[in-house]
Amino acid sequence: MSSAPHGKELERIGVAIDAGLLTKFDELIARRGYTNRSEAFRDLIRAELVKEAADQPSGQVTGTITLLYDHHVRLLNEKLTGLQHDFHHHILSTLHVHLDHDNCLEVIVVKGEAGDVRKLADRLIATRGVKHGRLVLSGIGPEL
Amino acid sequence: MSSAPHGKELERIGVAIDAGLLTKFDELIARRGYTNRSEAFRDLIRAELVKEAADQPSGQVTGTITLLYDHHVRLLNEKLTGLQHDFHHHILSTLHVHLDHDNCLEVIVVKGEAGDVRKLADRLIATRGVKHGRLVLSGIGPEL
Amino acid sequence: MSSAPHGKELERIGVAIDAGLLTKFDELIARRGYTNRSEAFRDLIRAELVKEAADQPSGQVTGTITLLYDHHVRLLNEKLTGLQHDFHHHILSTLHVHLDHDNCLEVIVVKGEAGDVRKLADRLIATRGVKHGRLVLSGIGPEL
Amino acid sequence: MSSAPHGKELERIGVAIDAGLLTKFDELIARRGYTNRSEAFRDLIRAELVKEAADQPSGQVTGTITLLYDHHVRLLNEKLTGLQHDFHHHILSTLHVHLDHDNCLEVIVVKGEAGDVRKLADRLIATRGVKHGRLVLSGIGPEL
Repeated sequence: MSSAPHGKELERIGVAIDAGLLTKFDELIARRGYTNRSEAFRDLIRAELVKEAADQPSGQVTGTITLLYDHHVRLLNEKLTGLQHDFHHHILSTLHVHLDHDNCLEVIVVKGEAGDVRKLADRLIATRGVKHGRLVLSGIGPEL
Repeated sequence: MSSAPHGKELERIGVAIDAGLLTKFDELIARRGYTNRSEAFRDLIRAELVKEAADQPSGQVTGTITLLYDHHVRLLNEKLTGLQHDFHHHILSTLHVHLDHDNCLEVIVVKGEAGDVRKLADRLIATRGVKHGRLVLSGIGPEL
Repeated sequence: MSSAPHGKELERIGVAIDAGLLTKFDELIARRGYTNRSEAFRDLIRAELVKEAADQPSGQVTGTITLLYDHHVRLLNEKLTGLQHDFHHHILSTLHVHLDHDNCLEVIVVKGEAGDVRKLADRLIATRGVKHGRLVLSGIGPEL
Repeated sequence: MSSAPHGKELERIGVAIDAGLLTKFDELIARRGYTNRSEAFRDLIRAELVKEAADQPSGQVTGTITLLYDHHVRLLNEKLTGLQHDFHHHILSTLHVHLDHDNCLEVIVVKGEAGDVRKLADRLIATRGVKHGRLVLSGIGPEL
């Protein structure tokens, strides 16, 4: 056990793995650019925890809603802005990129109960003129 | 290092994890019914390897195609059987369940290159009368 | 409106699509082997309905659990069979395939509330010796 | 056929759907906030096209990489910035949010071949200190 940044305790546990499986895992994480096996394990664990939290409507989550839309559609900007204000307690920040003459990509960083966040994403994606949208949940609180 | 069934070598590696993350992981796997932490780690690794193999058209995979269909649709049985014979080198076995008066569920166990298996699944799912279908890849060879 | 097999009413609705998007859709479904555009639309709808039902613990679902395991692991068969008996009201049928010297693939066709079916899948996948498992939900009742 | 914004042609096609399935679809899209059935159909089509493009390494895509990381980890900022510069032709914009005392959420808007974009995402996510990351592909060119 050693000390991590800001006093977070690092525990060292033993894991038994068949040699063949371990070799394949080491190759996989090398392809992805990991230089540290423990880091890869921690990422696998966190991804699994986020997946579980996302399935429970009351789980506290952090995430992003990505929208692709045509800014020429009448009143679309007003509707998207209006919806974001209705849920302003759940929105931390918004990034807007002009992709080409017609298309915008907007990324909205959200935080709150998974159920609320999902409802906001559904509403935004269903708005006429939004061509594609996705909600990605990334965190489940500061202690992740 | 200890001996596993059939001489498979088990290696014991050390993994460094923050105490808080480890607690959350232990709770997660307890909810899922794991009694052994190494088993849970190995399953995470294998799931990640299968995901990667599935993304490469020439990767060797094992899997299942699940089809839900209405057996009353004219010629549907003939078409599904015909397609399966065209790909008989990729099919290990088929299970058929009569769900209710109209609906059948068919599970086809497949093996071969991911690209071929995906093509077979696409064709089956696209057949008129097949209401829903899914391909699930489960393995990437005996050494998994 | 015309008559479908067994008196199911077929409605004909109009859908407005940009010409460019429609062309891309027609190419996509041709690649997948669809010969009928309405069939492709119905499949998209059903896939979306199944996805939604799967997210609600009390939704009635049909599906398959696919397990890959090493049959040499001590007591594994007994445990998997025991678990299946505990949930026998949710299991319609089981298919067992001998993949190679060590590995078995088992497909269990399940029916019931999404929450129960998910719990059964979690337990089976967590059992020591099960290398990989996946739950696929395919239906949401006879009227799909 | 009517005229859409900027001369995009809208075609009107007929789709045959069983009455029961149509009712369920209408309920689903109402829950999500759609006021227009054609809009919902177009979104389903676009989501399917994006899914297909994402599976081909040479497909042109637009998307976002979301990273959650602890900014206290030594040299992490330098590494993430360095990687982004190596791939600067693929990066349109980056949004940075200070989530809490330790955690940052960074959203990177990317554009280019799916294979390159995936490689950049893998590298960023594998960097030590990045706790969770996800790549979401949202578009496949201006004509979507």
